[in-house]
Amino acid sequence: MAKLDFFYEFASTYSYLSAMRIDDLALDYDIEVNWRPFLLGPIFKAQGWETSPFNVYPDKGRYMIRDLERLAEAQGLPNFKMPKIFPAHPILPSRVALCFSGEMRAAFTRAVYDAEFAHGADVADTKVIEKILEGLGEDAAKIFEKVNTPPVKDLLRKETEAAQKLRIFGAPAFVTEDGEMFWGNDRLEAAMEWVAKG
Amino acid sequence: MAKLDFFYEFASTYSYLSAMRIDDLALDYDIEVNWRPFLLGPIFKAQGWETSPFNVYPDKGRYMIRDLERLAEAQGLPNFKMPKIFPAHPILPSRVALCFSGEMRAAFTRAVYDAEFAHGADVADTKVIEKILEGLGEDAAKIFEKVNTPPVKDLLRKETEAAQKLRIFGAPAFVTEDGEMFWGNDRLEAAMEWVAKG
Repeated sequence: MAKLDFFYEFASTYSYLSAMRIDDLALDYDIEVNWRPFLLGPIFKAQGWETSPFNVYPDKGRYMIRDLERLAEAQGLPNFKMPKIFPAHPILPSRVALCFSGEMRAAFTRAVYDAEFAHGADVADTKVIEKILEGLGEDAAKIFEKVNTPPVKDLLRKETEAAQKLRIFGAPAFVTEDGEMFWGNDRLEAAMEWVAKG
Repeated sequence: MAKLDFFYEFASTYSYLSAMRIDDLALDYDIEVNWRPFLLGPIFKAQGWETSPFNVYPDKGRYMIRDLERLAEAQGLPNFKMPKIFPAHPILPSRVALCFSGEMRAAFTRAVYDAEFAHGADVADTKVIEKILEGLGEDAAKIFEKVNTPPVKDLLRKETEAAQKLRIFGAPAFVTEDGEMFWGNDRLEAAMEWVAKG
């Protein structure tokens, strides 16, 4: 089955929209999605930003919220809500996501985004992540034992380096097996079509 | 007839895509488009940029070109070509556009974008604009007499101030009569739908 890499960041609002619809689209297009969490922090730092561009440029940030309200509604998602802390520190949920693979990673990711952007939770908070893991029937204590071990930390570092090597500068980004990059939730369909046409 | 304001910048690549398709869409949606050229320079300066963000952030600039190649092809436009000088100084074509109104302003705008992004011309060059005006059956000398007079200069300044007051931070931007803003060529359909649903 043809594959598409889905690079997402846990603090990224537009990654949320993609995470909530990518599996349905993948079914339609008969494509296997590879869920790849990474960190935008090091990439933004290299661009001279110490925080999200939506904080750096307030007019853009204000517009983004309105845009997301409209898009979430059109997509049938709950009312969009900015989390108390934006951008959230994405390290904890990213590492937890990398403890899983396949459908479980996707399910965990969607649950984190739902807590963050439909309920305003701070997903850097261990208690929030614990509750999400329990809701998914996972043993949170067992996951938390793994989360700060070198293999998991290394994996997140490697994924972030892979994104940098692909010249990814924002999230979500979709990368095809033949190296074509598509940036932004708005390009998800175009990425799928690229893969489907082979 | 319901109206939609189309704020565009002559150096903006994505404004080009919108300019080439907005009239067809407006016909479908039965909407009157108000073509409003303005300057991004003062707006970018307020954000701390001395040039286009696509120059400030090279990875973004590289991606933008690939994105535009794909989008131009999908839209049935000639091969996308970056102009020799990017971003072009938009003052001359902006002032000329403001010497016209209605369909003539739209036709002039499309001709400028075609020269710039399908043929790589420098649209700050008087000779390029002269040729475009002649191609449209206009008396270039007569237009050039008007172009640097206070009423035309003031109008461009006022349009740019109007964009700033609306908190426009990029182009194209679409603004509805009830004050809803949509940013980017990707949001053109959403803007039309907003207007059409009343």
